[in-house]
Amino acid sequence: MNNSIILKNRPEGKPSMDNFHFKETEKPAAEEGEILLKAIYVSVDPYLRGRMRDEKSYIPPFKLDEPISSMIVAEVVESNNDNFKQGDFVSGMLEWKIFQTSNGEGLNIIDKELAPLSAYIGILGLTGITAYLGLEKIGKLKKGETLLVSGAAGAVGSVVGQIGKLKSCKVVGIAGSDEKIRTLQQKFNFDAGINYKDTEDMETSIAKACPDGVNVYFDNVGGEILDAAIANMNKYGRVINCGAISLYNAKEQPAGPRLETTLIKKSLSMQGFTVRDYFEDFPAAIKQLGEWLKNDKIEYEETIVEGFNQIPQAFIDLFEGKNKGKMIVKVA
Amino acid sequence: MNNSIILKNRPEGKPSMDNFHFKETEKPAAEEGEILLKAIYVSVDPYLRGRMRDEKSYIPPFKLDEPISSMIVAEVVESNNDNFKQGDFVSGMLEWKIFQTSNGEGLNIIDKELAPLSAYIGILGLTGITAYLGLEKIGKLKKGETLLVSGAAGAVGSVVGQIGKLKSCKVVGIAGSDEKIRTLQQKFNFDAGINYKDTEDMETSIAKACPDGVNVYFDNVGGEILDAAIANMNKYGRVINCGAISLYNAKEQPAGPRLETTLIKKSLSMQGFTVRDYFEDFPAAIKQLGEWLKNDKIEYEETIVEGFNQIPQAFIDLFEGKNKGKMIVKVA
Repeated sequence: MNNSIILKNRPEGKPSMDNFHFKETEKPAAEEGEILLKAIYVSVDPYLRGRMRDEKSYIPPFKLDEPISSMIVAEVVESNNDNFKQGDFVSGMLEWKIFQTSNGEGLNIIDKELAPLSAYIGILGLTGITAYLGLEKIGKLKKGETLLVSGAAGAVGSVVGQIGKLKSCKVVGIAGSDEKIRTLQQKFNFDAGINYKDTEDMETSIAKACPDGVNVYFDNVGGEILDAAIANMNKYGRVINCGAISLYNAKEQPAGPRLETTLIKKSLSMQGFTVRDYFEDFPAAIKQLGEWLKNDKIEYEETIVEGFNQIPQAFIDLFEGKNKGKMIVKVA
Repeated sequence: MNNSIILKNRPEGKPSMDNFHFKETEKPAAEEGEILLKAIYVSVDPYLRGRMRDEKSYIPPFKLDEPISSMIVAEVVESNNDNFKQGDFVSGMLEWKIFQTSNGEGLNIIDKELAPLSAYIGILGLTGITAYLGLEKIGKLKKGETLLVSGAAGAVGSVVGQIGKLKSCKVVGIAGSDEKIRTLQQKFNFDAGINYKDTEDMETSIAKACPDGVNVYFDNVGGEILDAAIANMNKYGRVINCGAISLYNAKEQPAGPRLETTLIKKSLSMQGFTVRDYFEDFPAAIKQLGEWLKNDKIEYEETIVEGFNQIPQAFIDLFEGKNKGKMIVKVA
């Protein structure tokens, strides 16, 4: 038998188990030109919340009563396609199913010897690439500048900060617990951390942690933390709007202070960043990240939850900040 | 005798005559190395409102009890400086005084034969350069794209739209009267115009005027018009935040919808633009604008008010949209 996870209805506000449905089906067979895949590691990511809304975005919304998809590492258990052989491991955008078939399009064969399989949906996958290309393409980070990162203990944020240190910048991270702040400083080499949950005035806390102001702000959370960061930006500062997890569950259009006069006064830029816009730069990013990984220049953290049935809960837990680093579900 | 205009107190909300004070002084004499200048044309600009606030910005605030300054075209009436001779005309950042001395620093000698003197604080001055470099440096406007401009009948906006047409784009302008909209279409060659004062739903009006969406939005006004423009932006759209006249007189921090999720979804960029950041590009901009002007490729409009005493009122009238094109005060 096979199992798949279906979007039963669209979340209003915070997602819950009610939004998902497990559906048992037959195990499919690989037809001519196809491969049969067995899921091993499934990535759950905050951006998936956006795809659960029925609205236009950079990728189409998930359809009701159809399986959800995300980045998955899978094993080829049967192949009728010359590009793949049984026992290969692949990564790609796949459906939340234990078994599925594919014509191989969009899948990459990955090397189990070079890095653990789970790394291919983390540091060597979209999260690592997002950190690298966001800084490279939009942040244009220069030696000696101050880099501020929110969601700093998350999958993307922890890589962002380490790249900042590799580029000889001062790096300050914002995260939601003292334990996470300790990890930022001890494991990821951040210069300082701010626990937003016990901070009364973010603007002042950022000012204290960044006495020379902020040159680049890598934003994974949006909302009031973004406002506080912008108040601390230096002239010609750059904001990489990579995520806005604090707003994803909002039921109404969130309001906040208007930013346009500040943008003008400080010649600031804010730019929405979606890693999918930079496909042609993926190989260079993976090469650089792989080198850093090989030379122990970069660390990563994973929260691995076991069991296919745990996928929805692992996704829900992202919004409580229950993950450290990349949240991954191990299927088998 | 001489006359100067002093900042008596800082406006709260809309500026009024009470904020200004006329002060009679002696006519100064040019010392060794100096020139004596007589003001001819004085530029009044919305951005001066920002300098009347006591807060950090891209240029320092005006000081209380001291003269205000702006772009001025003046005649050299006496020279003890080898770089200037009596009868020369210059443009530069000068004080609101009938007569003043200068060591010549920052002043450009201008050519009365090439263009009327007033053009040097308009189309060939900061306003023309702002339009040109804003589009060039941040808008990166490409042939066939749709360009939306607010404050379109103003000094900067009317040039922005014409450059858009010269670059083979579809150009839509937003302005505050039917007469202004007619001018945009008949004199400045805009494809369409929206009178925001008789529009109930800006978002829908922009959608109708820009059926292919907006690629570049040149914003001179900020506020709700900016929100409506952003709702109509295409993927990879660019917002040039050049001005926010709708907010300059606000007494409290204005609020509005949060934009970060939209920036991410559409890979949009918003960038604060201050022409002073691009000094090194001024000569190229002036050269291009001068060529267009010589070949009748570009039109400009001026609202010229007569009399030194009218400077404060002309400035105040900017916020009522009483100008068409560049607002200029003719002193003598």
